[in-house]
Amino acid sequence: MEFIQTYKAYIEREIQDIELPQTPTTLYDPLRYFMQIGGKRLRPMLTLLGAELFGIKKEEAINAALAIEVFHNFSLIHDDIMDAAPLRRGFQTVHTKWDVNTAIIAGDVLLIKAYELLQKQSGDLRSLLSVFNQTAKEICEGQQLDVDYELEENLTIDDYIKMIRLKTSVLLGCALEFSAIIANANESDRKNMYEYGVNVGLAFQIQDDILDLYADPSKFGKQIGGDVIANKKTILYLFALENASTDQLQQLEILKDEKDPQQKIEQTIKIFNDLDVKQKSLNLVNYYLQLAKDNIQKVSKKENTKNYLEELADYLLTREV
Amino acid sequence: MEFIQTYKAYIEREIQDIELPQTPTTLYDPLRYFMQIGGKRLRPMLTLLGAELFGIKKEEAINAALAIEVFHNFSLIHDDIMDAAPLRRGFQTVHTKWDVNTAIIAGDVLLIKAYELLQKQSGDLRSLLSVFNQTAKEICEGQQLDVDYELEENLTIDDYIKMIRLKTSVLLGCALEFSAIIANANESDRKNMYEYGVNVGLAFQIQDDILDLYADPSKFGKQIGGDVIANKKTILYLFALENASTDQLQQLEILKDEKDPQQKIEQTIKIFNDLDVKQKSLNLVNYYLQLAKDNIQKVSKKENTKNYLEELADYLLTREV
Repeated sequence: MEFIQTYKAYIEREIQDIELPQTPTTLYDPLRYFMQIGGKRLRPMLTLLGAELFGIKKEEAINAALAIEVFHNFSLIHDDIMDAAPLRRGFQTVHTKWDVNTAIIAGDVLLIKAYELLQKQSGDLRSLLSVFNQTAKEICEGQQLDVDYELEENLTIDDYIKMIRLKTSVLLGCALEFSAIIANANESDRKNMYEYGVNVGLAFQIQDDILDLYADPSKFGKQIGGDVIANKKTILYLFALENASTDQLQQLEILKDEKDPQQKIEQTIKIFNDLDVKQKSLNLVNYYLQLAKDNIQKVSKKENTKNYLEELADYLLTREV
Repeated sequence: MEFIQTYKAYIEREIQDIELPQTPTTLYDPLRYFMQIGGKRLRPMLTLLGAELFGIKKEEAINAALAIEVFHNFSLIHDDIMDAAPLRRGFQTVHTKWDVNTAIIAGDVLLIKAYELLQKQSGDLRSLLSVFNQTAKEICEGQQLDVDYELEENLTIDDYIKMIRLKTSVLLGCALEFSAIIANANESDRKNMYEYGVNVGLAFQIQDDILDLYADPSKFGKQIGGDVIANKKTILYLFALENASTDQLQQLEILKDEKDPQQKIEQTIKIFNDLDVKQKSLNLVNYYLQLAKDNIQKVSKKENTKNYLEELADYLLTREV
């Protein structure tokens, strides 16, 4: 998928060029640091690919794309504080490298910076802002639900889907609806682009949960089974809960306190395999990917024959990291 | 100043009516709590008074006014975390009543909510957003400077003015420029309204420093001399530093470690009085108030004969709390 590298390189250059004041260095150095430790840049890529689908040059949608990426980075900085995460993409988080206060205000400025980039985007600003505000609010709600769920005993698959829809998928939807707004597309096209993003986001997040336990260790960037060790309520775990016998439920409960990580992972995988939760989860990934492809098919105003968005959906399914 | 109460009551009603979702309650209850513990509501009042000066009904500028107030509350919630402040207006701060994570995300949602209110405001949205983004960024810079200054040895009056301009005054400027944008006023009127707000803000903040030590204890809402006890670098202290003899400088340095608060306050006042810093500070208040009045005089597009903004400037000078 060569186009992915081309778009990523373009986005990286544009991120380098985002104007940030030099002073106070105590405020702007942490921003610069965090924006440059990278990431897949998937979200801004979606805005650019969407724009091209409508026949809009990527340069004409770049500010909206950057607004999405900058917002994403704001939310990561604040989430990392809340999750007390020491590392992000292998680098120290802002609150670890500096301190919590620095990370709070660095995040705040990035959020404002996202709005500044959006304000520079050509197109119907009131519509762009309306979608962005709604999305931003939902992402905060999703983050709060994620926190609340840690204490929730009887979590269902539906609860989980609701949470990841808010916490991660709506931003992909927003990234794509931006492209439709910039292209002045009709309501139906706007909606289908948004839903494509949400469905890809759901598939992507569910696949993340699967990879955490079932990825090829030689290709996976992180420790295998990290979610199991941390007793995270992943889609695998929730499918297990919904299908387990009384006996298996008891085993899962006991495993929560298992101190030996290797033992914990092996025994969990055994129960998960008995309950076929990997396949159940993969079915859900495919379900959302099919919905996403249907959404793209329904978009009427296609000006471009190269339909990168469908390719991207397939690519995301085959990834191993 | 009866009009102040009328406007405040109107703003309070409108704040009650701001739409906030019910769930997650863990996210929205802290917001509701903080928005309702009150405050002077001076900032949104400025937008409404500015609008009326231009012949615009207050109802037609209310969303911009609320955006300013909601933004102000966002910044207070996050500042209170950074300052580890247990109380705000006599009530528990959000991070004290709940926890730091709750206060971070509650602040984030309020910041987004401010943009949502702005998006609902009629008028040139791109201009409103541009002024708001610039202001919001500057306020974060001001907060960071305030933090940085705690470790700064050789602070000047100019440094201090720069900091309070960013941290508090530009939001008053923004509140008033909003009214000019909504009224479609010309560049010069926009600039004068903005500068009026900044100058009133500077006068207000300097007066705050004076009142902390020289207010009538029977009328002042807080402990007299709190800034002295906390070794805060107020305008009084900085005027003292700039004018003190070597001997007085040494005394001020020793006083920083004085444990008896009454002793500390009395001896500090003695040095301050010897150096006439109260009068020097009052002169600065009057200087900025005069600039503010000049700004209002220069505004060309006055549609309203009742010039509440000039009255307000005078009122702020006579306040004792």
